[in-house]
Amino acid sequence: MSRPLTARVRLVQMEVLPGRPRENTVRILHEISAARAAGVELVAFPELAVPGYLIGDIWERPAFLRECEACGERIREASQGLVAAFGNVAVDWTRCNEDGRPRKYNALFFAADGAFHAPDGVPQPFVVKTLLPNYREFDESRHFFDLRKLALEAGVDARAWLRPVRVRDLAIGGLLCEDAWDADYTVTPLAELARHDADFFLNASCSPFTLNKNHKRNRVFDAQARAAGRPLLYVNCTGIQDIGKTVYTFDGESCIYDGSGHQTGELAPFEDGLVTADIPLRGGGAFGRDVTLADDETPSISAALLYGTGRFMQRLGVERIVVGASGGIDSAVAAALYARLLPPDRLLLLNMPSRFNSRTTIGLARELAVNLGCRYAELPIENSVSLTREEFAGLVVQGPGGAHIGLPLSPAALENVQARDRSGRVLAAAAAAFGGVFTCNANKSELTVGYTTLYGDLGGWLANLADLWKGQVYALARHLNDVVYDRPPIPAGCFTVTPSAELSLAQAVDEGKGDPLIYPYHDCLFRAWVERWQRATPEEIYTWYRDGVLEREIGYAGRVADLFPTARAFVADVERWWNAYQGLGVAKRIQAPPVLAVSRRAFGFDHREAQLGPQDTEAGAAVRRELLKK
Amino acid sequence: MSRPLTARVRLVQMEVLPGRPRENTVRILHEISAARAAGVELVAFPELAVPGYLIGDIWERPAFLRECEACGERIREASQGLVAAFGNVAVDWTRCNEDGRPRKYNALFFAADGAFHAPDGVPQPFVVKTLLPNYREFDESRHFFDLRKLALEAGVDARAWLRPVRVRDLAIGGLLCEDAWDADYTVTPLAELARHDADFFLNASCSPFTLNKNHKRNRVFDAQARAAGRPLLYVNCTGIQDIGKTVYTFDGESCIYDGSGHQTGELAPFEDGLVTADIPLRGGGAFGRDVTLADDETPSISAALLYGTGRFMQRLGVERIVVGASGGIDSAVAAALYARLLPPDRLLLLNMPSRFNSRTTIGLARELAVNLGCRYAELPIENSVSLTREEFAGLVVQGPGGAHIGLPLSPAALENVQARDRSGRVLAAAAAAFGGVFTCNANKSELTVGYTTLYGDLGGWLANLADLWKGQVYALARHLNDVVYDRPPIPAGCFTVTPSAELSLAQAVDEGKGDPLIYPYHDCLFRAWVERWQRATPEEIYTWYRDGVLEREIGYAGRVADLFPTARAFVADVERWWNAYQGLGVAKRIQAPPVLAVSRRAFGFDHREAQLGPQDTEAGAAVRRELLKK
Repeated sequence: MSRPLTARVRLVQMEVLPGRPRENTVRILHEISAARAAGVELVAFPELAVPGYLIGDIWERPAFLRECEACGERIREASQGLVAAFGNVAVDWTRCNEDGRPRKYNALFFAADGAFHAPDGVPQPFVVKTLLPNYREFDESRHFFDLRKLALEAGVDARAWLRPVRVRDLAIGGLLCEDAWDADYTVTPLAELARHDADFFLNASCSPFTLNKNHKRNRVFDAQARAAGRPLLYVNCTGIQDIGKTVYTFDGESCIYDGSGHQTGELAPFEDGLVTADIPLRGGGAFGRDVTLADDETPSISAALLYGTGRFMQRLGVERIVVGASGGIDSAVAAALYARLLPPDRLLLLNMPSRFNSRTTIGLARELAVNLGCRYAELPIENSVSLTREEFAGLVVQGPGGAHIGLPLSPAALENVQARDRSGRVLAAAAAAFGGVFTCNANKSELTVGYTTLYGDLGGWLANLADLWKGQVYALARHLNDVVYDRPPIPAGCFTVTPSAELSLAQAVDEGKGDPLIYPYHDCLFRAWVERWQRATPEEIYTWYRDGVLEREIGYAGRVADLFPTARAFVADVERWWNAYQGLGVAKRIQAPPVLAVSRRAFGFDHREAQLGPQDTEAGAAVRRELLKK
Repeated sequence: MSRPLTARVRLVQMEVLPGRPRENTVRILHEISAARAAGVELVAFPELAVPGYLIGDIWERPAFLRECEACGERIREASQGLVAAFGNVAVDWTRCNEDGRPRKYNALFFAADGAFHAPDGVPQPFVVKTLLPNYREFDESRHFFDLRKLALEAGVDARAWLRPVRVRDLAIGGLLCEDAWDADYTVTPLAELARHDADFFLNASCSPFTLNKNHKRNRVFDAQARAAGRPLLYVNCTGIQDIGKTVYTFDGESCIYDGSGHQTGELAPFEDGLVTADIPLRGGGAFGRDVTLADDETPSISAALLYGTGRFMQRLGVERIVVGASGGIDSAVAAALYARLLPPDRLLLLNMPSRFNSRTTIGLARELAVNLGCRYAELPIENSVSLTREEFAGLVVQGPGGAHIGLPLSPAALENVQARDRSGRVLAAAAAAFGGVFTCNANKSELTVGYTTLYGDLGGWLANLADLWKGQVYALARHLNDVVYDRPPIPAGCFTVTPSAELSLAQAVDEGKGDPLIYPYHDCLFRAWVERWQRATPEEIYTWYRDGVLEREIGYAGRVADLFPTARAFVADVERWWNAYQGLGVAKRIQAPPVLAVSRRAFGFDHREAQLGPQDTEAGAAVRRELLKK
């Protein structure tokens, strides 16, 4: 019998439920049946499709591991008449992980006709992930043993174990996610596999959405497929998975790189679906269509936020939402997002004015609620704030040296009292009475420098705008008005009113007074501190300023000299915000709600930080002195 | 010239300031001068003594790395006439880490006479850490490249690079912390070094305090020194270092294991100091004294809490403390701890009764303040809670289908309103007015199952009791009364009053009503879920119950049958708390304050978790069904 010229393959882009092996397995078994009925030869599922990926330290529970193994056995038994490739944890109960627990591998299993099939000459009946990422939110060395260590232990060169799996009529080069992102590693799995006549490569991934990552993946994977001259199948999951402080969306975008510069079958982001294709085996031809790339990031952000927020609500059983609506842009965007995810009677906007809130912003909050058709109420906080002020003024404090009367609250303390009164008192109680939760509308610019009140506007069940710089919030607001909604819900005044906390007379929006941040510039400055891969500090900022390249380095479109007439003013501003970022900002982030990740560096698990106080360097201090002498 | 028979060595147990290379270097240079003057041949400093260890992702800042390198150069230059061994980050700017950043090693440098000295035959002029821990709070693969990967890249067996450093007249086997905790690794650095006639071994560590860890280290290190037949010098730092959610103390406890079963020169925990000793070189004799171990854990806990809290106050510049004093044991212990760290006029106890608080507990809070001689005030929250209730009852809610009046608060909602009123309104404002911070007095039992209110009693600057089970809090209270203080400050009534939140009539302490937790039993149950190395789930709990071994497995001294008359009642209780632990408990911990670590598993960075909802296994469900059938 001669070898066929093509093989029908199917990629299953599915929502993987983290920590729910039984539910995921039911889905996998269903897709295997459907694939068999469709004459598919290989059906492929994402990395760790059985257990899920971001599940914290649940990997340390033997009971959970046993259940994942049992699920894998069920899939093995169901693999009659085709190849089912799926990600699962593989456990070697006889050997030790480096943490003293049973050894675990992040593994890709090839089940066919009731058996698991190993790569050529490899003792384990599965593909062991070679490259375990340990940056950003990735933390795989904590729980998994990699192929390099395994080979070292066996006295074998790891490269000798990078071989295709030969199963039924196919030779498949199996890879798991990072295995194909090998630029910074000394072992390059795909190149090794390519030496051994694989028909094609399969990369099973569990790869979180990051803004613009899809473009990069297309470049990297396409180049790899072309270098090998064979197709590369990429299957990724959808869904959301979180790691405490940070919630990640998974966009799928599974597709096939055909080995000649084309890409085919790309699925829509954030939707489950199947790619089915007849792949030419060795000696076959090419197929495909050109890749087109979208340049505007805002539609991606909008899609990720709607998807991630909706899925997180579903996961936690949240069906009613209270938004503290100030009339500003952040809460307006939050309300407009939630209004897409809930019937209007389950969304409550609450405006909570004190004496410092303008009729302007109260009117904008009301207009927003009318536009959205949702519930709306006003609960002034003046009485409560007055009560607190009076109670403290009359407090009798006993103690060393006798009693005294009064522990008066300063104007600054009273600003925070207002913010906490709104969230800690009103919104939390309103959420309980309404049968839901309340939102945190903080943006990334505020969160970076802690321009927010703990137990106040920093409270909430989820901070879904907290990975967006202020400028991105405005862009998202325009996108919601212009594209997502038929009739623009966000009032025009929200775009033009001065951004302000309205907690004192110094923040009166009708006089054009508001936040101390110059958002277009500070967004760029803060991004250099937080998101640059080689992270900048004041040392770099001062040096770039001295050398006249600051605008270019941080991507600021204006002129810094227009904002700060002197070097002294410039330095004072950098210091003020650096100290806030590294000082109280850290303390506030530690107690902040979970952040929905969008950027290449979200606060939370992907941005480890300690309460060390502001850092500087001697070299930075020297440039600073140089600037101040001018 | 003949080789001397002994060498004078000195271990410098110093507080390492995380992220402060210049300050640490000043201290190191000072100690080098002092050691030279004392005729010391080798002066040894802890692991990463220059940069600090738990500094989050500051490792990603090139400016910081350059500064650490410059500090290392200064130490090199100062190493005239002796050997200075110190931990620092080593950077190879020409090569890539696996995260695409400059490559970094956790390195031990041997500087002598102005030069760095490499181990025999090793190309790098420093010792590269071989074993990088990646469990608990350890996360070294995120930033550091290890000796195993480095050797693999060079095509060398890592063992060939485990050689002593020969410098001046000494041959020293250099190790960094985990290198000597090699039981679960395939490479065993000390055994390799021992093949190559080292005079002695030096283990430079940055090892956080964990309850009972010191006993284990004495066993492990002593056995290693005896197996090698040579002394092992152990130098560890003091101080505190935190990683966002979790604050670690470093106890030092540096000493010398002499190779014949004795230990010498052990320094007091949590204190800086020097061990100076004349070490016999090869052919020399032995010395030392027997190891004595303390069995009671409470003095250790007390010392770690006082040290860690005091240092954290110092670090963040906290000089005034407000404690919400309920009359219960937790806040009494918190107040008694802070009273050791502050002058009495800088400690303010605030009792905030509502209608549900008994005269009993108010009296206990007042008595505590009198005993401590600190400031004290009572601020009833009844007016504020009533105002909130009335405002919600009269709220006008507009919306789909017209306006309606009232968003009434249920009794359960009003319990949380009280808790948030106390912390989010009163304590936070009191802290601002008093010029300090307020404390979180939550214990680990409550935090495990989320028996606490977000923005309420779960607020605060630091949760320094949150790694203690309720039983440990009582033991600590007795220790404070009996040992730490001359006159017992904690009233006897705090020990006998029923633990209660006093938020409703159902929690009336004078009727013996209170918390729904049976602490002696639930402490043990929760510990099995949280702290067991192989973490238990309901599957194990049900199985042990069925098999009659539950009490032994979880260490409960009573009989479970006395608490739960039927299997049904037992199962219902396990489910209730498991669901709380895995459900809202996670959400609350995400926004909790930093926890001061004591146990082998503190909440926070050492206990990664996601909001997945309660987990179970099929096997667990089967045992559960079996139990319910009985």
